[in-house]
Amino acid sequence: MAEAVRKRQRLGADERRQQLIDIGTRMFASRSYDDVWVQQVAKEAGVSRGLLYHYFPDKRDFFAAVLGQSTHQFDLRTDPGAELPLFDRLRAGLDAYIAYAADSPDRYRAIHRSVTIADPDLRAIVEHNIQRQEARLLAAMEFDPKHDAILRLAVRGWVAAVIACCLDWLDNASVSAEELRELLATALISTVQSILTR
Amino acid sequence: MAEAVRKRQRLGADERRQQLIDIGTRMFASRSYDDVWVQQVAKEAGVSRGLLYHYFPDKRDFFAAVLGQSTHQFDLRTDPGAELPLFDRLRAGLDAYIAYAADSPDRYRAIHRSVTIADPDLRAIVEHNIQRQEARLLAAMEFDPKHDAILRLAVRGWVAAVIACCLDWLDNASVSAEELRELLATALISTVQSILTR
Repeated sequence: MAEAVRKRQRLGADERRQQLIDIGTRMFASRSYDDVWVQQVAKEAGVSRGLLYHYFPDKRDFFAAVLGQSTHQFDLRTDPGAELPLFDRLRAGLDAYIAYAADSPDRYRAIHRSVTIADPDLRAIVEHNIQRQEARLLAAMEFDPKHDAILRLAVRGWVAAVIACCLDWLDNASVSAEELRELLATALISTVQSILTR
Repeated sequence: MAEAVRKRQRLGADERRQQLIDIGTRMFASRSYDDVWVQQVAKEAGVSRGLLYHYFPDKRDFFAAVLGQSTHQFDLRTDPGAELPLFDRLRAGLDAYIAYAADSPDRYRAIHRSVTIADPDLRAIVEHNIQRQEARLLAAMEFDPKHDAILRLAVRGWVAAVIACCLDWLDNASVSAEELRELLATALISTVQSILTR
């Protein structure tokens, strides 16, 4: 108990915030949104519930922060720069994405599996995140705007396929990371080519 | 009230079961699993909670029955028979699938959006359903077993893409049903061809 108090006093605001996010990431990874109890997060961090609410006014804010941090780390790691050709950038981005998922399977599952998808507010957070990835991909493609509607749909489907394949791959590891990357790159490239040459 | 009682007495066991499933389908379509209250289903059907539990011992049984009925209707409608070539069967199956989704958008959303994906028991029900569709597709493909692992992953990703695209299409109708079907057929065909010719 004295140890817990000393720990609490040692952490600054940024460190404390980060500690709470780390605990949240782990909890959301293995439980549904409804089964994560804010009290338990506070207890594990050795802080009062009031202090946790000081950082995150409610549970959705907390979840949004957990998701937001993962998104930020993901963006930093999966932007291989605009100097490469599109398909090379796609492969490099996928390598980074797969490594990011493999680095911390719990975090990856937390984002993509532990959300009560029917909750409109939570869905809005995840949806916003996916739309941002879609826009990034579409902007990189620079194709004729007349294909916009069908390409946007193709990218939306592809992002869902990437997530489903990565979740399956984390659980089963039935192919190598390179095979997974080639499958996902191929799926987008060959579909887009088919649309454009129709 | 007298009317409700008369209605209750008029329905046979099969009709009653069907009525409860219909109400459940509608409710799961617009709410999360946790927000569907068994009491409310019973009330809307004009029956006691006890009678509802007679048909479905708990809420998961009820959800499984709602999902199972949709799956059964779906199978009946999307099996165009083995006499057509694979790609024609795929297109015919997709036409039926898209028509099935468009016929009752609420039911489609109920299955694919309103599930607390993190709940292991519910996920097992949905997962079993998806695996059945994957197995059906893989069996129809009849390719060299050496490609099995990567094809299974490709099909898994594709099924997720189909669901994401259909959900988006139901909300936004940004392309025609034919364009959606061609996109989805092309996505699978071109990806599988790329894998097999690598």
